[in-house]
Amino acid sequence: MRTPDFFKKLSRGPQVVLLKDAAYASAFAGVANGDRVLDAGSGSGWLAIYLATIVGPAGKVYSYEWREDFHLLSKKNGVKAGLDSIIEFKQKSIFDGIDETELDAVFLDLANAENALPHALNALKKKGACVAFLPNVEQVKTFVLKGEELGFVHERTIDVMPREWLVRPQGTRPETKGLMHTLFLSFLRKP
Amino acid sequence: MRTPDFFKKLSRGPQVVLLKDAAYASAFAGVANGDRVLDAGSGSGWLAIYLATIVGPAGKVYSYEWREDFHLLSKKNGVKAGLDSIIEFKQKSIFDGIDETELDAVFLDLANAENALPHALNALKKKGACVAFLPNVEQVKTFVLKGEELGFVHERTIDVMPREWLVRPQGTRPETKGLMHTLFLSFLRKP
Amino acid sequence: MRTPDFFKKLSRGPQVVLLKDAAYASAFAGVANGDRVLDAGSGSGWLAIYLATIVGPAGKVYSYEWREDFHLLSKKNGVKAGLDSIIEFKQKSIFDGIDETELDAVFLDLANAENALPHALNALKKKGACVAFLPNVEQVKTFVLKGEELGFVHERTIDVMPREWLVRPQGTRPETKGLMHTLFLSFLRKP
Amino acid sequence: MRTPDFFKKLSRGPQVVLLKDAAYASAFAGVANGDRVLDAGSGSGWLAIYLATIVGPAGKVYSYEWREDFHLLSKKNGVKAGLDSIIEFKQKSIFDGIDETELDAVFLDLANAENALPHALNALKKKGACVAFLPNVEQVKTFVLKGEELGFVHERTIDVMPREWLVRPQGTRPETKGLMHTLFLSFLRKP
Repeated sequence: MRTPDFFKKLSRGPQVVLLKDAAYASAFAGVANGDRVLDAGSGSGWLAIYLATIVGPAGKVYSYEWREDFHLLSKKNGVKAGLDSIIEFKQKSIFDGIDETELDAVFLDLANAENALPHALNALKKKGACVAFLPNVEQVKTFVLKGEELGFVHERTIDVMPREWLVRPQGTRPETKGLMHTLFLSFLRKP
Repeated sequence: MRTPDFFKKLSRGPQVVLLKDAAYASAFAGVANGDRVLDAGSGSGWLAIYLATIVGPAGKVYSYEWREDFHLLSKKNGVKAGLDSIIEFKQKSIFDGIDETELDAVFLDLANAENALPHALNALKKKGACVAFLPNVEQVKTFVLKGEELGFVHERTIDVMPREWLVRPQGTRPETKGLMHTLFLSFLRKP
Repeated sequence: MRTPDFFKKLSRGPQVVLLKDAAYASAFAGVANGDRVLDAGSGSGWLAIYLATIVGPAGKVYSYEWREDFHLLSKKNGVKAGLDSIIEFKQKSIFDGIDETELDAVFLDLANAENALPHALNALKKKGACVAFLPNVEQVKTFVLKGEELGFVHERTIDVMPREWLVRPQGTRPETKGLMHTLFLSFLRKP
Repeated sequence: MRTPDFFKKLSRGPQVVLLKDAAYASAFAGVANGDRVLDAGSGSGWLAIYLATIVGPAGKVYSYEWREDFHLLSKKNGVKAGLDSIIEFKQKSIFDGIDETELDAVFLDLANAENALPHALNALKKKGACVAFLPNVEQVKTFVLKGEELGFVHERTIDVMPREWLVRPQGTRPETKGLMHTLFLSFLRKP
């Protein structure tokens, strides 16, 4: 079980994907126990760790990061989370190619994600998913159109805005302020 | 991997929890590989099957349903999904008690969910989550206040409205029509 | 013209209805040039002033407030805005009755708004609108059901969440943080 | 007063701006009684008529439309609404220039709205607003950046998604389905 404290013990580094976005990315990609998935870049290792709690020891997470400092940080966090046997952290740029094949899903949380699409297409198994976390609409368009050009099917692009509610005896209503936007999630599927 | 076709082969029955809600319920509860979780009522078995793809063979899903027709339907769907070794479908009302103990999470998708809270509290391990799928605000309030009275911590209640985007060379924009509301998700945590 | 600076010159007092809510309240009520409308309580006079810019000199805004300090503040602001000939500020509780008749619309921005409904029903002309600004769902329910009981038609209750966008050469996306909730707007119509 | 029936008597033609968008466009532009405003293209005349109910007889609405059929339709609707003395319908393309000067606001509901910006800048008074109704994000970007280049200040771009609520004794919740998107509203202000 990942309790709310689970991620608190990890060392801090670059900004992490929020649980609200990781949950949808993983669920709509279709990640399941036993899957072999890839994420790039590792950043703090947060997303790789989240995915490892789902694929379990029967699966594998390959986590690419070209920056040495982030690579070491994410590796350290993988150990802290007790999931380093499931995650293989690699210091490598995904733009230089993907070593693995027959992957179930590829998650891209980096600038110019579209440039990783040809590698992702080769590395995925049939029906495998390629998911990008994209802050701006322009990036969504570039990613999706490039993906379609390469033969991917654009399954969906979503914009998730969960609203937290105050529930109290004296009155029930949404919280006044909150996160209006973090990232767009674009899902491509290999036919 | 659960591809988009995964759930299409299942037999239809009562209305199912949507993937958008199941994904958040599971992720914010903290369900991970190896967990032992419970859902009630089984309905078509959809949520139990979704949870089984996450907890895997090292975990277990107990799925309670008092109606014989739904119980048999969900059981049949568990077999179709090839996950019947992970899920134990029981024809039993959760309001009559929970047989299991030390559960990681309990999911309640039924009317009067608050009446299952005392049983859930006993059946959960420390830090375990009790999550309800609730259509109306009144139900949210009843569920959350009853839970707090029993000693649960109200972690969050959310209202999820993902927006699908059209991404085309000629223009990028959200889809015109869509789902504005399905269910509120209320998360209680055993201290 | 009300430029963005228009309201800045007014004296501050109790929390004001935001433009996003005033705009919808007025538009869906159907307020037009020449209308005679009422608002209670005056607060800082902000809503009365906004309405006065729409009904114009051919119309009239009656603004009720029982607290002397707020009454005087709103009156002062009406003068500052140069609209005191259109607005009649009254130090009076709307719960004690409405002096006017054949009103086009009544706006209620106060606690226990439902207690003003019988007075509003008498004071409105046929097809006139009674609009309430309500923070909590419980208040919405009480207001709407009481209104229907009295013979009003519940036209709509809305929840407005405009999202501000960043538009820049380097990328277009919604602002990260923002207002998730201010008030529910409930619209009742006299048949 | 514009009751909900007000617009029903008008003749149907091209798709109209919805009240939810017209309300915000007008309110955030700052349109008030007595203002002189322009809209292009007229379409069915709906927006011009809405604006006329706010500016009143002390103000003026100039409504440009180059297509003869829409021009005649909007003119007919202006008469039906009894507001033809306030609205001047012109059969003219706004891209060929604006005859008026010292306008309080210009509303653009047509393709390539950015091409009308130089004319709008000349025709507006100081602090006047130029508002565009734009379906796609690409159009927002083109409009806003072109406006800034010309010297306008980008006040805001919003995305409005009101949610309708069901309020019933047996339960209160948002409507299941609804409009997720109609138009982006971009507001430019002449310094």
